[in-house]
Amino acid sequence: MAEIMEVRNKKLILKDYVSGFPKESDMDVISSGTINLKLPEDSKGVLVKNLFLAADPHLRPLMKKADNFSVLQSFTPGSPLHGYGVARIVDSKHQDFKEGELVWGITGWEEYTIITSPETLFKIHHDDVPLSYYTGILGMPGLTAYAGFFHVCAPKRGERVFISAAAGAVGQLVGQFAKLSGCYVVGSVGTQAKVDLVKNKFGFDDAFNYKEEPDLDAALKRYFPEGIDIYFELVGGKMLDAVLLNMKVHGRIAVCGMISQYTLDNHEGITNIMSLVYKRIRMQGYNVVDYYDLYHKYVEFILPCIREGKISCVEDIVEGLESGALALVRVFRGLNIGKQVVSLAKE
Amino acid sequence: MAEIMEVRNKKLILKDYVSGFPKESDMDVISSGTINLKLPEDSKGVLVKNLFLAADPHLRPLMKKADNFSVLQSFTPGSPLHGYGVARIVDSKHQDFKEGELVWGITGWEEYTIITSPETLFKIHHDDVPLSYYTGILGMPGLTAYAGFFHVCAPKRGERVFISAAAGAVGQLVGQFAKLSGCYVVGSVGTQAKVDLVKNKFGFDDAFNYKEEPDLDAALKRYFPEGIDIYFELVGGKMLDAVLLNMKVHGRIAVCGMISQYTLDNHEGITNIMSLVYKRIRMQGYNVVDYYDLYHKYVEFILPCIREGKISCVEDIVEGLESGALALVRVFRGLNIGKQVVSLAKE
Repeated sequence: MAEIMEVRNKKLILKDYVSGFPKESDMDVISSGTINLKLPEDSKGVLVKNLFLAADPHLRPLMKKADNFSVLQSFTPGSPLHGYGVARIVDSKHQDFKEGELVWGITGWEEYTIITSPETLFKIHHDDVPLSYYTGILGMPGLTAYAGFFHVCAPKRGERVFISAAAGAVGQLVGQFAKLSGCYVVGSVGTQAKVDLVKNKFGFDDAFNYKEEPDLDAALKRYFPEGIDIYFELVGGKMLDAVLLNMKVHGRIAVCGMISQYTLDNHEGITNIMSLVYKRIRMQGYNVVDYYDLYHKYVEFILPCIREGKISCVEDIVEGLESGALALVRVFRGLNIGKQVVSLAKE
Repeated sequence: MAEIMEVRNKKLILKDYVSGFPKESDMDVISSGTINLKLPEDSKGVLVKNLFLAADPHLRPLMKKADNFSVLQSFTPGSPLHGYGVARIVDSKHQDFKEGELVWGITGWEEYTIITSPETLFKIHHDDVPLSYYTGILGMPGLTAYAGFFHVCAPKRGERVFISAAAGAVGQLVGQFAKLSGCYVVGSVGTQAKVDLVKNKFGFDDAFNYKEEPDLDAALKRYFPEGIDIYFELVGGKMLDAVLLNMKVHGRIAVCGMISQYTLDNHEGITNIMSLVYKRIRMQGYNVVDYYDLYHKYVEFILPCIREGKISCVEDIVEGLESGALALVRVFRGLNIGKQVVSLAKE
């Protein structure tokens, strides 16, 4: 008979599908559940204790009922959210994982999670850097920035790069990769504090607050009088439309996300798409899951950059599942500065 | 002193910039001009006699005053149109060209044209096929279809291909290349006669008349219940928006043209562009000029296909510059069946 070790398992759940902008009250912390810390004998998965959870922008569209774009699976009302996190293996029935090992990957917004397909988890081999980095620079956003910039955008020295949502977890890294590659880099952000951060901490050549630019086309022409070679797209909508007018011939647009559109019932129409023909532009949507095989190469590249201080990263860490809903709403509203992380446990 | 051989040089001119849909009366044939058939001694160009002119859809946006998309150079009011054509060298001051040789490339809508940069011309080495083919299957539209399908779309056997404007010079070839590649191919066209042509003459698996489909999304779901791998885009607007909803993950869209948008003052907004992220779609604008180095390889591929009847092409030939304006308006309105050509001279 399996040993029984029942413990409390607090969860952050979605109360019901959200229409419009998610609010804190759309989520709830449930403390009543328990979990057995020993997996049943017939399990092939692992049971993890969650240490850090990533409050990522891509969770926003998962809060509404699946629509036409149904490749995404929405959250289930009454069940905990899921997303990227850092965790420790508590019990394992899978040959590749042992109790005590640290991993990052998709987990639940709860204290303990049973992961039935642990093949999707990445092992953490380097713990001389903060473990929370594996929700950001050393995790999904880091690989997203690396694959998107170096593989999708295929940059050349001296090219002119524009990044929207430039202070976010992905944008801040893309900008720094672009500077390391000898490019001219400008970012757009939503507050003056982020303008300062992006210029002073991350070393962008310039940045602007899009909320203070009534004419985005004019703003882009000011920073890119000769046009844009590479646009790293995180925002969509009016920004994309203005960028299309300012792309150079043979420009590339990596479409990583479109946070301005996620909770609109009717997406904004893009009217300048004909630029793709006239300027022979490549516009490529991508997802980090197609680039997981680059992860070890990426770690070899990024770890020395972190240790030598060549790449900065800024985190915005809150404590406890009780802060989770607020952390998510802050990210969806762009109020966080740097990678928003929820810390659940130290070990 | 240079020999003087003045002859008449009839021209089809644009009377003034066109706003809205071009009409025959926006153009005029001028018969009063003459030209000297001997180039001046200091010329580095060639003088050609034009044999066939291509009435191509891409001429339509050149009739309006240059706008934001100013990589295109508009026609000059009072001057002849220019576009792709087949011509014979009458006089040459360029070492690579000799009197009597046949060429295709950019020339004027007039009887004789001085081409100052003949490096852009392609020599015609095979005249056992109709010379008019060098405005179509053996010229720019042929290479456009070849580069766009094989290089931009990167097709795999068994993939599902959708082509808009499928009866046109490029679309009819893309569909046949897709069938040769083992793909399932459906085209959209604007008349029942073109539905029949595309299915019976060009061997598409199916085709529909978009004018009889009030719900394009529903039409696409009927022909592609499992989704579209490759969209060859020639139309834009509402069709693109419906296609985006029906693309498969990792789909590719080659953006060759957007004829539905060329003369709109306000382009239709594309609201489903977020599909690019969710479905990891690559959408690539391209222009044949970037693929000119493939031309000889293309000719080696296509000539045997033509000679063995593996590839069909349909032309719609009218006689004389006086028919030029009507031929163009017919193309812009989609009234032509097959490649619209204006024949000026036999030799």
